[in-house]
Amino acid sequence: KMLRRVLCTVLFIGALPSLAEVSQGHISVVLLGATGDLAKKYLWQGLFQLYMDQVSSGHSFTFHGAALTALEPGQRLMFDVLKKLACPPDESPNRCAVLKDQFLKLSQYHQLKTAENYTVLNREIETLLRQEGLKEAGRIFYFSVPPFAYTEIAHHINSSCRPPPGAWLRVVLEKPFGHDLESAQQLAAELTSFFREEEMYRVDHYLGKQAVAHILPFRDQNRQFLDPIWNRHHVERVEIVLKETVDAKGRTSFYEQYGVIRDVLQNHLTEALMFLTMELPANVSRAQEILQCKLQAFQSLRGLEKNSAVLGQYQAYASQVQEELQKAQDYISTTPTFAGVLIHSDNLRWEGVPFLLTSGKALDERVGYVRVLFKNRAYCTQSETLRDAVHSQCKAKQIIFYIGHGALNTPAVLVSRNLFKPVMPKGSWREAVGQSDLHIFGQPLSDYYVYSPVKERDAYSVLISNIYHGRKDFFITTENLLASWGFWTPLLDSISHQPLRLYPGGVENQHLLDFEMVSGEVAFTLAEPVELLNPNRLMPSNYRTIQSKFRRSPLVSAWSEDLISQLASDIEKTASRTVARSGQFHLALSGGSSPVILFQRLARHHYAFPWKHTHVWLVDERCVPLTDTESNFFSLHNHLLQSVRVPYFNVHPMPVHLNQRLCVEEDRGTELYAKEIMALVANASFDLVLLGVGTDGHTASLFPQSENGLEGAQTVVLTESPVKPHQRMSLSLPLINKARQVFVLVLGKGKHDITTLLSRVGHEPRKWPVSGVSPSSGQLVWYVDYEALLG
Amino acid sequence: KMLRRVLCTVLFIGALPSLAEVSQGHISVVLLGATGDLAKKYLWQGLFQLYMDQVSSGHSFTFHGAALTALEPGQRLMFDVLKKLACPPDESPNRCAVLKDQFLKLSQYHQLKTAENYTVLNREIETLLRQEGLKEAGRIFYFSVPPFAYTEIAHHINSSCRPPPGAWLRVVLEKPFGHDLESAQQLAAELTSFFREEEMYRVDHYLGKQAVAHILPFRDQNRQFLDPIWNRHHVERVEIVLKETVDAKGRTSFYEQYGVIRDVLQNHLTEALMFLTMELPANVSRAQEILQCKLQAFQSLRGLEKNSAVLGQYQAYASQVQEELQKAQDYISTTPTFAGVLIHSDNLRWEGVPFLLTSGKALDERVGYVRVLFKNRAYCTQSETLRDAVHSQCKAKQIIFYIGHGALNTPAVLVSRNLFKPVMPKGSWREAVGQSDLHIFGQPLSDYYVYSPVKERDAYSVLISNIYHGRKDFFITTENLLASWGFWTPLLDSISHQPLRLYPGGVENQHLLDFEMVSGEVAFTLAEPVELLNPNRLMPSNYRTIQSKFRRSPLVSAWSEDLISQLASDIEKTASRTVARSGQFHLALSGGSSPVILFQRLARHHYAFPWKHTHVWLVDERCVPLTDTESNFFSLHNHLLQSVRVPYFNVHPMPVHLNQRLCVEEDRGTELYAKEIMALVANASFDLVLLGVGTDGHTASLFPQSENGLEGAQTVVLTESPVKPHQRMSLSLPLINKARQVFVLVLGKGKHDITTLLSRVGHEPRKWPVSGVSPSSGQLVWYVDYEALLG
Repeated sequence: KMLRRVLCTVLFIGALPSLAEVSQGHISVVLLGATGDLAKKYLWQGLFQLYMDQVSSGHSFTFHGAALTALEPGQRLMFDVLKKLACPPDESPNRCAVLKDQFLKLSQYHQLKTAENYTVLNREIETLLRQEGLKEAGRIFYFSVPPFAYTEIAHHINSSCRPPPGAWLRVVLEKPFGHDLESAQQLAAELTSFFREEEMYRVDHYLGKQAVAHILPFRDQNRQFLDPIWNRHHVERVEIVLKETVDAKGRTSFYEQYGVIRDVLQNHLTEALMFLTMELPANVSRAQEILQCKLQAFQSLRGLEKNSAVLGQYQAYASQVQEELQKAQDYISTTPTFAGVLIHSDNLRWEGVPFLLTSGKALDERVGYVRVLFKNRAYCTQSETLRDAVHSQCKAKQIIFYIGHGALNTPAVLVSRNLFKPVMPKGSWREAVGQSDLHIFGQPLSDYYVYSPVKERDAYSVLISNIYHGRKDFFITTENLLASWGFWTPLLDSISHQPLRLYPGGVENQHLLDFEMVSGEVAFTLAEPVELLNPNRLMPSNYRTIQSKFRRSPLVSAWSEDLISQLASDIEKTASRTVARSGQFHLALSGGSSPVILFQRLARHHYAFPWKHTHVWLVDERCVPLTDTESNFFSLHNHLLQSVRVPYFNVHPMPVHLNQRLCVEEDRGTELYAKEIMALVANASFDLVLLGVGTDGHTASLFPQSENGLEGAQTVVLTESPVKPHQRMSLSLPLINKARQVFVLVLGKGKHDITTLLSRVGHEPRKWPVSGVSPSSGQLVWYVDYEALLG
Repeated sequence: KMLRRVLCTVLFIGALPSLAEVSQGHISVVLLGATGDLAKKYLWQGLFQLYMDQVSSGHSFTFHGAALTALEPGQRLMFDVLKKLACPPDESPNRCAVLKDQFLKLSQYHQLKTAENYTVLNREIETLLRQEGLKEAGRIFYFSVPPFAYTEIAHHINSSCRPPPGAWLRVVLEKPFGHDLESAQQLAAELTSFFREEEMYRVDHYLGKQAVAHILPFRDQNRQFLDPIWNRHHVERVEIVLKETVDAKGRTSFYEQYGVIRDVLQNHLTEALMFLTMELPANVSRAQEILQCKLQAFQSLRGLEKNSAVLGQYQAYASQVQEELQKAQDYISTTPTFAGVLIHSDNLRWEGVPFLLTSGKALDERVGYVRVLFKNRAYCTQSETLRDAVHSQCKAKQIIFYIGHGALNTPAVLVSRNLFKPVMPKGSWREAVGQSDLHIFGQPLSDYYVYSPVKERDAYSVLISNIYHGRKDFFITTENLLASWGFWTPLLDSISHQPLRLYPGGVENQHLLDFEMVSGEVAFTLAEPVELLNPNRLMPSNYRTIQSKFRRSPLVSAWSEDLISQLASDIEKTASRTVARSGQFHLALSGGSSPVILFQRLARHHYAFPWKHTHVWLVDERCVPLTDTESNFFSLHNHLLQSVRVPYFNVHPMPVHLNQRLCVEEDRGTELYAKEIMALVANASFDLVLLGVGTDGHTASLFPQSENGLEGAQTVVLTESPVKPHQRMSLSLPLINKARQVFVLVLGKGKHDITTLLSRVGHEPRKWPVSGVSPSSGQLVWYVDYEALLG
């Protein structure tokens, strides 16, 4: 050990002749996993680039490779890597050779295994700095290790390797950062117990890709052109795509746990999406503001549903998994290797614009790009054959951030010439001289202004430079990470039993993976060809709805999402039929949480619903102001009414708030509502009443043993709920039973007991008010999901 | 005269050897204007075609050419035309020669000038039929004469040439049918005094163009494919185009009065538009149902505004007019020879879909087409270079009714192969074998299924056949005609002083006439190049708004449309600023007719308006139910609220209808509204109050000498109007004067006197309530249009 110290000191002294002169202080970079694949391929080269770039910055550096391997074999392995470091083409060979020599001298290997190893490392750094008379600026610990090792390493760094006060600590973490919201939260919580938020640099190497890293600067520098068009009025669609030709062979032990969404979409493509959709802060050099805007962009994303994605798996994947993971011949993998996902942002800027995120393995080509296609609203009077082609306003208008590979085989920014000539930073991007015969995104390359980087930089070089500069906006904050998992986890959960389309791989895929948007969802354009169906594949079948009987009335049952779809369709059908017959449709809706999903579905998927002729009534209401978040009407408004066009006059909230007070008998709100119903609804017979069921058997706001509303002539009543807010207004059972149709919606495991009970009891409304629902001349249908029905 | 009769009889007897045997009866066709251009070019040929087609139908025919010319020269002129009649290529030459000979024998010339001429014609027809023992089936009178001659001819036919009871009369009329709504109504009224609606066949020869005539049959026969996609969710845009290379030279005396909109758009292109947008009756062979649906389609068209059109005039037009019409050198023609018009239909099927109608003279090519472009919602995973091109879902999807000329040079129906293979009637349309190198609408011809007619038929042949068959759906009914003029006349009025873009003509036009849609309007894509501006052209300048002072407050003045644009922008600016500052915007709006245009403008053009944070209040209300068409709120709802997204809770109609009665003092509606204002509006100070002015100087519903509301503490008052409905509710003057901003809008000549008066009087609210508007700490701005200001 003594020997090594001496050796190191010698090395260091030789390499740092002028260390004492520099004033910015010293930076120690510790690369954990120094002999691993990532380090070999990118990280050492990135550190060398950092050294070349910053050697004159006033900072001094030492580089500490570390691994579990013992000192000597580790040293050998590491220096084998270092010797192969390349000089970038834009660097003079002489300077590079000198710097490489210095870099090697500044680098040393450490075995970091035990707590003591870390203590020793810390002591060595301290000793060196003391000997050299150097002030410590900071330490970078780069975790190029599997995530299961994170906690232990973090613990050691925190307890024995922190720099002294006044110097910073930056720990760099590589994905995966969990595999769903819960695991990501757990990992984040652990790390947070060791490091402060500003100390953590979570890498998503896409943010270091030059084209991705330039999205925000591009938006900033071209504000004058983009401000009027960077919104839903002008953007037709956005495609964010990473296609690979390789498959998962040799990596299935990793891949089988993650799949394409966790591997690519949740991180890389989502980050690119955020750069596109986030509001642009006034100053894009302020990392904190960028991170804040990005987080807000996450909050505007509309939740994903099962049908927001199309999923595939290349045919050879199953056998690769069986082989590599020693699975049985009948093992079925449900891991997608291809995904196309439709995302919407609900903020005003992007409402309605489709963002398509696509990635897959074993596709026809390797390429990555972000493509913004603008709406074309021009009509060209001159015939296309007689037109000056370049300046035609009738050609497609697009902006493309070309990440790499593909036909261009370089990072690039492309802007259609009929849009604008972009402002690009002269030092770092230059206009590319094109291969004129190349066609890209449907147009000859000459239709675009094309810019490529003056110096091509590997993503890790870019990121390492940004770690050095403390640019946290190039990294994933904890909040950002959790927001992303929060967004993706519901989709991952809902598709875990989804059938996958099998594809042969490569150019054979042809149109098999093409997909299209159909009323807010995505679907493959081709039906699955029979010859590709794997006969061994026993996917959970695509559960259909079951039609049966419950309490002697029709029962529709399915998994909740399918059930809601069916119910929404049935309501639309009833509405259309009723409007066709009588010119209007009187719909009474219940409060509570179950209908919320229904409201959203009606708002988003039922464009043809005759809202203009629909009257919306409330089945029951809580005695709170209408703008209170507890109000049933408020929820109805938020999830449905504000998105559709029901005329103001056709909306009938319950008058629970009269004369500045709530449900006071002498204000006669019930009477008022009853009169309104009498005046507008023929025979006071609603066309459709939607009810729910409580675990106690209540329906509407009619609770067991209620004094009002279970019988008698009163049509609208005040009732008492056992839970807060206690006071309620409700339609009475006799009024409900006058309806032409009554649908009862029951969702979730929590309703299983009452569902079972109801299947056995008769007409006992005093005990279980819902058992009194029995339309005198109308139809009753039960919509009960599998969880409520089967437990 | 005796001689002629004998001659004719001989001719007829020779030609009709078997007349007595036929049972369907005899048809006399009278062609008025038999030696005119249209007759020479199309009509005689069409009549000959009718004869060839129907010679075995069981009907017998005679053809009577008529003109003002005396018998002998007329006869000669006419028979010169008849001798040149062509045999269609699909007819056997032998049969055609025989039939042509017969046709000539069945045709005779008449001078129709005086009343007596008509009586004689009538007698001749009767005599012939009696002699031949024929039953009369009907008479066709084809008016190929200038419209000024219509009335007299109609009078003569009606009084002396009607067929006997049991036989029908069909009079065929050629456009122009008026030059605006008023003249069309007048002409229609005159004709209606002579003919019943079912007797009149107004020709729009576009309806006889084979591609246009096939739109409805196509929609009918392809219902299974079109039903799901023939709507706003799937159609991106529709282009209806008729481009001509010729200019108006030699026809300026006609053209100068009409221009391209009256000549082509109001009739031909509008008719095609109707065939596309109308609902399809269950049975398309029922003419009455088709006409009914077409009329409904007219009713859904959104009104055109000045900016719905771009207009041009080819450069040589002015000098052609000067020359041909002997005008002075400085004569300026405001007649457009080019127009692009953006039309919207407000029915649910088409809401938001842009229909572009374009036509012009002196353009780069001669072509006519109707193009339906579908939205493309596909994402093709396979790279375009590696894709099977023909079936790609990523290519454009379109259906084109190709009327003729252009690159195809034949009528055709084209359907993108990635849409569907259309059902086409085998007998009349066949798949065309394409020129494979041809590109059409951005795609190779091989991307389409292409069908062309088995027999190309001239439009007039098609129409004459449909007159014979009594197919009124191929013609323009009076209702249809007036609906069309009702739609176009406001645009024609509003553009009569609009500047025209000059264009050189031919391919030189380049991009000069390209235009694009910008927030619901159209505009040329290129700024007008200076070198093309005609220095002699003294167009009324594009009036800008004038900023000045009125009653010591700021005044904004302009022509009404510009004024409304300015006001809407100012309101939006105030709203955005206020929401940015305080989170909400309290806007109080007046009733009456002037604000309606403002409401529409706000609804259609101000996408960024912060409606979500806006509270809408009423300045005044009539004591009628809210759903009454007289209600201010009803108008506000119709023209604004139903199109934007103001949350339900933020809409505050005045409570004029409480306890099933209107504005009864003890219902305390005014108190209720005052309390609502107090509860929500900070300091009861509205952010913006919009007022109008009555000719009596009233504002809000505060009338001269009003007992309430002009002063005092009451904020909301009941008042009496001198006009019905008398009872009103209104904000009081003191409350209005608490507002942060008050805008007063004054429009129209009718307000000139009160405007002049107000400019002179001081603060006298009892005489002229509006003179009491004087915000105590807010700002007052007057928006007065030129007509009100200048008279």
